Parts: sequence; C-alpha cells; structure tokens
Amino acid sequence: MHVEPDLVLANRLADAAGEVIRPLFRTAVEATAKPDRSPVTRADRAAEDVMRRILASDRPRDGIIGEEFGQERPGASRIWVLDPIDGTRAFLAGRPLFGTLIALLVDGAPVLGVIDQPILKERWVGQTAAGGATLLNGRKVRVRACPGLSAARLATTSPWHFSGAGHAAFGRIARLAADTILGGDCFNYAMLASGHLDLVVEEGLKVHDWAALVPVVAGAGGIITDWRGRPLRLGAAGDVIAAGDRRVHAQALERM
Amino acid sequence: MHVEPDLVLANRLADAAGEVIRPLFRTAVEATAKPDRSPVTRADRAAEDVMRRILASDRPRDGIIGEEFGQERPGASRIWVLDPIDGTRAFLAGRPLFGTLIALLVDGAPVLGVIDQPILKERWVGQTAAGGATLLNGRKVRVRACPGLSAARLATTSPWHFSGAGHAAFGRIARLAADTILGGDCFNYAMLASGHLDLVVEEGLKVHDWAALVPVVAGAGGIITDWRGRPLRLGAAGDVIAAGDRRVHAQALERM
Repeated sequence: MHVEPDLVLANRLADAAGEVIRPLFRTAVEATAKPDRSPVTRADRAAEDVMRRILASDRPRDGIIGEEFGQERPGASRIWVLDPIDGTRAFLAGRPLFGTLIALLVDGAPVLGVIDQPILKERWVGQTAAGGATLLNGRKVRVRACPGLSAARLATTSPWHFSGAGHAAFGRIARLAADTILGGDCFNYAMLASGHLDLVVEEGLKVHDWAALVPVVAGAGGIITDWRGRPLRLGAAGDVIAAGDRRVHAQALERM
Repeated sequence: MHVEPDLVLANRLADAAGEVIRPLFRTAVEATAKPDRSPVTRADRAAEDVMRRILASDRPRDGIIGEEFGQERPGASRIWVLDPIDGTRAFLAGRPLFGTLIALLVDGAPVLGVIDQPILKERWVGQTAAGGATLLNGRKVRVRACPGLSAARLATTSPWHFSGAGHAAFGRIARLAADTILGGDCFNYAMLASGHLDLVVEEGLKVHDWAALVPVVAGAGGIITDWRGRPLRLGAAGDVIAAGDRRVHAQALERM
C-alpha cells in the first residue's frame, strides 16, 4: 500500500468524525465519568464508531486501537490509533480546542498523524517519513527557534495529571521556563508545530493521546520523545516531552 | 445619556480592538513579562490605545481604567474599564480563547459588559439593568440549571493564581464538583453565561478582569459575587465566584 491512500483515508476519517462532532458541540450532551474521572459523551462514542466503520470497510486487515472501544487485531503490523475527542472537558466546556486524533502505526512506530479541530476547521497532518512535512489545512508549518529553556513558553493540560515524582520534575521545568499555560490538550502540540509554543510536557498519556502528535511535531521540525529522550513507540509509558527547538528539549530532559 | 448610545459605543470599542488584535494573532509578537510574570505584547497596548482614543473623543468626561495604561478621571461617576486582551498567555499560545473586556461602571457598579473574542467573532454583551439580557452575537443566551455542587462543571484559569488560603478553599470546591477544567480566562464566564459551565472560581482578579463579567453573567440569569457573596463593585478584592444556578453558588460559598 502506498502512502498516498493512507493519507487520503486519514483525511476521510477526520472528515467523518467532524461531521458527527460539530452538531453536538455546545449542545446539552450528557457526560459520564470514566474510572479515571475523565468525562466521555455520546459525541466521543459516535465519532469513534464512524471512524471504525470506515476502517472495517477499507482496511479490514489493519489493527485498531481506539480510546472508547478498545483494540482489534493488536498484533497487526499496521495499526490505526483513534482518539475521537482528545479534550472532552474542553468540548463540554464549549471550547473549540479539543481535537480528533488519528494515527497510523507501522510496526509500532507512528508514521502518519492527524490533529483535527472540527469547529475551527483546522487540521494538522504530519508524516515522519524522510522529507515528510506537517501541513495545516494544506500549508506547511514549522516550529520556531528558541535558544533555551529560560526563553521557552511551556504548556501542559493540567498539573493534576502528573504523579508525585512527575509533578516535581514538571515543577523544575516550569520554574525555569519563561512562562507556562494550562489547558489545551492536543491543541498545544499543534501550536508547537505551528511555532506558537516551545515546549509541552505531559505524563502518562495513553497511546491514543500521543500517537498522532509524533508525526505532527516531527514533520514540523520539532522533537518529541519520552522523558528519557527515547522515541515514542507502541508500549511506551506515555511520558511526553515535545519541543520546537532541540536546545530546549535537551535542557528540559536534563532537568526531568 | 441613554443606555442605547453606551451599548453602541461599547460595540465600537470592541470592533476597534478586534481590528488591531486579529492581524497580530499567531504572528511573531514579542512578549515581555510584567512584575507579576504575566505577559504583555504590543497587541495589548495597541488595542487599549485605540479604545482610549475613541473614549477620549466620544466620552471626554467619563473616567477610564485600563489594564495597560492606568486610570483617567477615576473620580468620575461613569468609568469605562478596559482589558484589551484578557488571556494574553492564550493569545501568545495561538488559542482563540482570550477576550477583549469592556465594562461601564456607574457609581462603582458594572452596568454594561462586553466579552469579545475577535478570532471566533463571538461577542457577549450583558446589562445588569432590570430586564437586561445577555446576547451572544445578538442572540439571547441563558445559564443552565444545575442541582448542586456535585453535579457542577467547574473552571478556573490556573490553580497557581490562588494564594495559600485561596488554594485550599478552591481545593475544597474542586473535590466536590463533578469535574474541573483549567485555562480559559474570561471565556469561562462567557461559557457559563451560555450554559456550558456551572461554576467559575478565581481569586485576586483586577477590576479590568472582572468588571465586564458581571453584566454578562447576571444578564444571562447567573450569579456572580465575591467569595463572601457580596456584589462586585469598584474597590472589591476581586475574589470571584460565578455560578449559573443559585444552588451551586450557595453550596460553593458555604465551603469557601
């Protein structure tokens, strides 16, 4: 299978999810709390369902890992990873900052990633292949240069999402960074890819949270690894550090 | 002076600020840190400047309190309160969730408030006068009912903005609420007015941060006071608690 068809398919998945999500945004959608207290709605489930139907029809042999409905064929070499609404809290709060995340893993490594914001109609598509670029609505985006941690604008969704040790490590970074903004979910990584943030640090993300971010950040010239500097692959602990500039990444890693 | 011309003027101020801000959004705008470490940019200054010019020409006897350029005629009975970009961190991070805040105080009480999001082109206008409604782009919005704190979706911009005692009080509320979202600045109050959030709690806001919120929340049927349940007036400490439903407000106040 060529890369082009996968890209086309990924765009179709994002289109389909957006059509399910848009009419439910800022309506009285009920939320239930999952075991980790994070909310889920019928928008999450319906958007994942529509993407799974397309994959079942068009890529019947590929594996699927989805946030809401689990795994299919997890031993496949090609696996689609779906998070229908990353940032369900933001969706429920009426903020157009959540995202539909779609990734393709090949032998455990993310090679294609989509961050789609269906209300703003902003879609970032990245590829990790050599020469792969990250496009926002078809236009190339690039990270920005940042000389070091003390000049870096840092983002994380919530300090409450860190473990005890993780919180301490994050605190060391936040004290050294120029400034920190909270909230944002996947949108922070999109903004890093587009050159508006320098550093994003999060702990304990699931594969459906991080898989799509890797090609988007890497394709824009950024660096995204776990907290030890290793590439993020299927099975990773999901402690994520993403930077637009390698100098920031190196200085932050030293202090984690 | 009739109310109608003030409303028209407030809309002109928001239009003018938006025209200054829009072209600078997601561009390489430099930020400098204020003494409280919060960032300021030339977008903040230029947007406040354009609003002050209009007021100087059209309301030469009214007072002005602005975030960036201080006070004029602070003893006047009518005072315009301006925050050109509430949420400069969000503005810098490429998030269309900051807002231009415009309020009119009469004898210290906010009677007219505007929350304008110039990228989404969403504008909430509220009035506290009897029969005053809150309009989002000209359409009435209303808070939603919520039976109590345990069912409430809570928002605050950052837990780091609380003092020690304030942080403890906020923690008590957050533990009891159904869920909490971080980030959002003034947009949280707009979403409360539109019925997508139930409770917003913040501490130590300045008058330019809270004045516009009062008419927007009140006009939509919500309640917004200080942490002791008193109305917010010029000189208030700026510890703000806003709820869509009085039951949530009462239960939260008890636990502050």
